[in-house]
Amino acid sequence: MRVNAYAAPAAGEPLAPTTVERRDVGPRDVLIEITHAGICHSDIHTVNGDWGPQPFPVVPGHEIVGLVTEVGTDVTTHRVGDRVGVGCMVNSCRECTNCLAGDEQYCLRGMVGTYAAVDRDGTTTQGGYSTHVVVDADFALGVPAGIDSAAAAPLLCAGITTYSPLRHWGAGPGKRVAVVGLGGLGHMAVKLASAMGAEVTVLSQSLKKQEDGLRLGADAYFATSDPDTFATLTGRFDLIVNTVSAPIDVDAHLSLLAVGGALVNVGAPAEPLGVNVMSLIGGRRTFAGSMIGGLAETQEMLDFCAEHGIGAEVEVIEAAQVNEAYARVLASDVRYRFVIDVASLR
Amino acid sequence: MRVNAYAAPAAGEPLAPTTVERRDVGPRDVLIEITHAGICHSDIHTVNGDWGPQPFPVVPGHEIVGLVTEVGTDVTTHRVGDRVGVGCMVNSCRECTNCLAGDEQYCLRGMVGTYAAVDRDGTTTQGGYSTHVVVDADFALGVPAGIDSAAAAPLLCAGITTYSPLRHWGAGPGKRVAVVGLGGLGHMAVKLASAMGAEVTVLSQSLKKQEDGLRLGADAYFATSDPDTFATLTGRFDLIVNTVSAPIDVDAHLSLLAVGGALVNVGAPAEPLGVNVMSLIGGRRTFAGSMIGGLAETQEMLDFCAEHGIGAEVEVIEAAQVNEAYARVLASDVRYRFVIDVASLR
Repeated sequence: MRVNAYAAPAAGEPLAPTTVERRDVGPRDVLIEITHAGICHSDIHTVNGDWGPQPFPVVPGHEIVGLVTEVGTDVTTHRVGDRVGVGCMVNSCRECTNCLAGDEQYCLRGMVGTYAAVDRDGTTTQGGYSTHVVVDADFALGVPAGIDSAAAAPLLCAGITTYSPLRHWGAGPGKRVAVVGLGGLGHMAVKLASAMGAEVTVLSQSLKKQEDGLRLGADAYFATSDPDTFATLTGRFDLIVNTVSAPIDVDAHLSLLAVGGALVNVGAPAEPLGVNVMSLIGGRRTFAGSMIGGLAETQEMLDFCAEHGIGAEVEVIEAAQVNEAYARVLASDVRYRFVIDVASLR
Repeated sequence: MRVNAYAAPAAGEPLAPTTVERRDVGPRDVLIEITHAGICHSDIHTVNGDWGPQPFPVVPGHEIVGLVTEVGTDVTTHRVGDRVGVGCMVNSCRECTNCLAGDEQYCLRGMVGTYAAVDRDGTTTQGGYSTHVVVDADFALGVPAGIDSAAAAPLLCAGITTYSPLRHWGAGPGKRVAVVGLGGLGHMAVKLASAMGAEVTVLSQSLKKQEDGLRLGADAYFATSDPDTFATLTGRFDLIVNTVSAPIDVDAHLSLLAVGGALVNVGAPAEPLGVNVMSLIGGRRTFAGSMIGGLAETQEMLDFCAEHGIGAEVEVIEAAQVNEAYARVLASDVRYRFVIDVASLR
């Protein structure tokens, strides 16, 4: 089955319309007619070649929402007509310790990325900037009623990437959580942490988005460009989720943690960061990282979002606007996620 | 009360016999006749001026065991004749969140170190290389019967410094713990983790102390100078306690952790360490630090050691040998802790 898609033909080149082959629906697969695909900064890094050579042409997109239009003979979890989401992974071994523990994202044999990855059948995966996709049914999550499809798409990456560390490090009532950066990931972290009952503070470079931050659920908003911020907030937080991929002053941020607090990076700067070990020892602090979430946890996040009326703040675009959208993401000119209306690709 | 002591007269100068003044026993104090004082690498760093200017003369020693010879009028927890230990701190505010949570070592007003620190009454503290010390009774822990006093002294620093992170990060049956470095701290970490029921692996520069390590309770022993070690042990450990103060390759050690694992430094290298954030993100790993332990936890550690027949491996020396012992510590020529027989100071 050949389907319409938008692909990067080579590193750094603009995306252009094309078609890609989707595999036949196997016994455990579902065919999804995609309705929406979010644009993640990772898509841009990948097609720009920032993360090394890629199997071009690459169809990006790992924030996918659509409708099931066909199910494999062994599939019992989804039915034709179901609204489902696909995130950053479309396969894993399902046999290793981590898969069995529900941490498929850390599969010991390597999880299979939704695009530009080699699937376990040897084919190269192609992502969600496309009218259809065929995936293993286990990797299609149910999108509960009550969330708009466009607003749901970014939950599959930006949502779970922030939900997982918030849950893992115990964000909730009585906990003080700081979110560094108010972008695609940061705005989800604020909404989620606030819904979990935590006291939420945004740490942003400037106060430019302060009004937004407070509207999204933050209780306080500080500019990290103001040195007073670090003095004022010393020892304040139980958890800091850093959504920024640019290097930060790790020691300065660790100083904002209470005893036993954790600074958790979900953004990955290219260069190593320097850490003064005394910043950790002086308060039993941790510097940690977290990557998306497992399948069950992603479903839990979607259900949580439906229950709390949470979706991403999105700007819906046509597929033909994708290159322009990339430029705007790079200029931080998006509040807070572009989502492609995939109807425009049909 | 003037008492005999060994003090460093100035940075980098040999320690020499002297006398120091001990305060009168206040209502909440105990007077301790010291019998044993361990020699910690921190003592050497301090008197060498490695950690900045000090209020010389400095009497080091924060691994103290002795007998209570006088108690203040309000003291109900200790009696004359009790065997007690004093570790790295002799005071804290007892009012802040951390003190109230039993984390006196992280007192928000600053815990008072056992030597070279300003006590809350304004006097400068002097440590355990001395015949007597007066401390707040709360900071004197009971040393249970069944541990030799010389072997008990190092528990007050090397013991609690390793016990606390082992407990905090859940060392026990079914957990794989690695200990980096087999020195004063490392040998205690091996004994304690083994007694807690964990599978223990020593990661040492060479295999020189392998026989010792296995005798102390390690299940396996690897040389970090052998690059194969890192390939062989990839993803193996739930917890790595790094007792080495020299810089290590943090990313290489993080790669030895299973998903969710923690690398915990109890040694503090002077220079910042570089961390590739992907090493953390790729397995929800944490890089953390830990500093001694609270009072209740130190008592718990002493009781645990008594129950499991654990003491430090010590070489008992006379006070006059302290400078020679320092030279041997710096040459890593000690298995595994020097302890001063304070009777030699009377």
